[in-house]
Amino acid sequence: MNKRNAITVEEAQKRLGQIEINVNTEMIKSVDSLGRICARDIYSIMNQPPFPRSPLDGYAVRSVDVQGASRENPVKLNVIERVCAGMCPQKEVGPKEAVRIMTGAPIPEGADGIIMQEQTDEGDQVVEIYQPVKAYGNYCFQGEDVEKGVLLFEKGTQIRHMHVGIMASQGIEDVQVYSVPRIGVMATGDELMPVGCALMPGKIYDSNGPLLSARVMELGMEAVRMDSFGDDTERLADAVMESLGQCDALITSGGVSVGVRDCMPLVAEHLGAEVLFHGIDAKPGSPIMVMLIGNKPVFCLSGNPFAAAATFEVLVRPVLEVMRGRLGWRPGRIQGILETAFPKPSSTRRFIRGRMDNGKVWLPEGRHSSGMLVSLSQCNCLVDIPAGNGGMKAGEAVDVILL
Amino acid sequence: MNKRNAITVEEAQKRLGQIEINVNTEMIKSVDSLGRICARDIYSIMNQPPFPRSPLDGYAVRSVDVQGASRENPVKLNVIERVCAGMCPQKEVGPKEAVRIMTGAPIPEGADGIIMQEQTDEGDQVVEIYQPVKAYGNYCFQGEDVEKGVLLFEKGTQIRHMHVGIMASQGIEDVQVYSVPRIGVMATGDELMPVGCALMPGKIYDSNGPLLSARVMELGMEAVRMDSFGDDTERLADAVMESLGQCDALITSGGVSVGVRDCMPLVAEHLGAEVLFHGIDAKPGSPIMVMLIGNKPVFCLSGNPFAAAATFEVLVRPVLEVMRGRLGWRPGRIQGILETAFPKPSSTRRFIRGRMDNGKVWLPEGRHSSGMLVSLSQCNCLVDIPAGNGGMKAGEAVDVILL
Repeated sequence: MNKRNAITVEEAQKRLGQIEINVNTEMIKSVDSLGRICARDIYSIMNQPPFPRSPLDGYAVRSVDVQGASRENPVKLNVIERVCAGMCPQKEVGPKEAVRIMTGAPIPEGADGIIMQEQTDEGDQVVEIYQPVKAYGNYCFQGEDVEKGVLLFEKGTQIRHMHVGIMASQGIEDVQVYSVPRIGVMATGDELMPVGCALMPGKIYDSNGPLLSARVMELGMEAVRMDSFGDDTERLADAVMESLGQCDALITSGGVSVGVRDCMPLVAEHLGAEVLFHGIDAKPGSPIMVMLIGNKPVFCLSGNPFAAAATFEVLVRPVLEVMRGRLGWRPGRIQGILETAFPKPSSTRRFIRGRMDNGKVWLPEGRHSSGMLVSLSQCNCLVDIPAGNGGMKAGEAVDVILL
Repeated sequence: MNKRNAITVEEAQKRLGQIEINVNTEMIKSVDSLGRICARDIYSIMNQPPFPRSPLDGYAVRSVDVQGASRENPVKLNVIERVCAGMCPQKEVGPKEAVRIMTGAPIPEGADGIIMQEQTDEGDQVVEIYQPVKAYGNYCFQGEDVEKGVLLFEKGTQIRHMHVGIMASQGIEDVQVYSVPRIGVMATGDELMPVGCALMPGKIYDSNGPLLSARVMELGMEAVRMDSFGDDTERLADAVMESLGQCDALITSGGVSVGVRDCMPLVAEHLGAEVLFHGIDAKPGSPIMVMLIGNKPVFCLSGNPFAAAATFEVLVRPVLEVMRGRLGWRPGRIQGILETAFPKPSSTRRFIRGRMDNGKVWLPEGRHSSGMLVSLSQCNCLVDIPAGNGGMKAGEAVDVILL
């Protein structure tokens, strides 16, 4: 990385936004679609409810027959039928007639109102009605929830429980969704050992692989853990190519800076990859490099754990969200008020970890270095600290990206 | 249900909070623990980093040797060794000596500062140093991220990507988590047909089963769909018992009101269940009944789709959250400002659907009836409308429960 080649975060996002992404779709059962992204606008295919129905337990009547009814002067009606939910009324309600009806049952022809059973004597053959009802009172119309042909939700909607329920209510069995992208995650560096081995001198456990994979899964994508790789250009280049054969995109960590063993730039050269950029004018993670190999993006993040985690949110996630069908997705930037000062002056733009709750933002005390991971435990956001400030005071408004 | 027996939402929540819940725990791989709830406080088991390490590429030096160094008056040091990340330094740095060192490599004995390579001539045998460093400058201390024996995160923490990363950084391979409860979901009612069948007259598709199951899964639990069941007390009682044999709790919808076919209360009687309550003084879903059978809760919700969805959030979810290990979990109630009026006066407390965004709350126009489901599509919260109000105006503050 050459610092003079560093570009702004916005320019990096712009270049990433220009990557041509092929999204695939597939048809799946709507009951299995939770968390997936709709690939089509979803329209209602029937009136719901499919028939006028009773919203309560009582008697279906002609409103004209019960005008003026009261406990003192009840109106008597002949009960000609009983209809429960799931049944079909066989008769039409004529003058001075009523049908015993239960919640959810179809309202019979002729009736234009329902009397709640508490306002009757609940008679079987003959019923005494103690209250009038206006025309279409307690009457749930056909198509009242939704008529046939109405947009239920749009292409790009992330399917939640209510959408599963809405599709079921319409009898929509299958739904076209975007395919889940497979994202490879490969930590590089001779110092890394996988969890489960006894730690050797000079080594550390790989945390970037597990963290980035977990984040990919948290966002609803498939993470494919590639073995951690040492700092050897040719073997690494082979591993990158092999990984790309199995994945739609690859995220690596480590080896992007200026050290003699930082070989990701050499890998790019070796493979003749198109480097979109190498270096951003922001901390942490400024050495980030992004390349395209056969139209597949390879995100080469810093090996520092917080740097990898932060640049993932700011630069990698937007591309992955588009890959999984959230076209035009942008990180939800919201405003918060700092409860904790960040006194360190910053000539560079800086993303720091914080915890946001009800519009207020707390920062962990100290422990902001990009090599520090543990203080991220209580955090749920990144705070965007603008370049060229002399330190941020409590009470100042800041832009926040939720994790 | 008898309206005179209806209790307040708070009283219902109190009774539900007194249910004795047996939570189980299990040991799983930390890389597979995303979304699970920690059953133990998690402590660091080693210093991280495990050794003092270099935060950059450069030269490890004795700070006393490079005092006053500048481009005009460089200090020359003998380079005695080269240490990359993953290697162990073999030599101690003596007077006028330096060690070539890469980011992440252990700092050799004797050295107390790192000079960035850009401030040197990058010499192999002899290096010219152009800048001084103060004692322990650019020096990343052993245990700087975390020392051994520190609380990393508490029992009850929902494991997110950062926690997976933190455990990996500590070499923590296994983690004790609460077992995932199995929640049975059974829609009842003769009018229901499963999606995939042609709809017969008088029937509707079951949406409660799919919606409630999806919600249970969204919250990180296992949903077990039981077949929809008609309105026959004995057969329903058998089905309830059979379901409870496979599940830790059961949610039913339908059959809790006062109709002749509302047989959930009869099921309770038939099974000799302990009824915690039947009826709440709030809308929608006021006929909700909760019973205990062999210490397992059975939540009998209204069959109206929005009523079932809303009472799930207010009364069922808190119990399920405890079952999955979030002891003491309470719905996150936040305040919002109504952007839309809700002019309907309400003598009863009422939970209505809405959409909250940046502290503002919009309501769908009309379409608030408990039988209506489709307007929930754009919603992400319930708005708690207090009893006895004459209608809510735009600009009023309201309590909100996020979905």
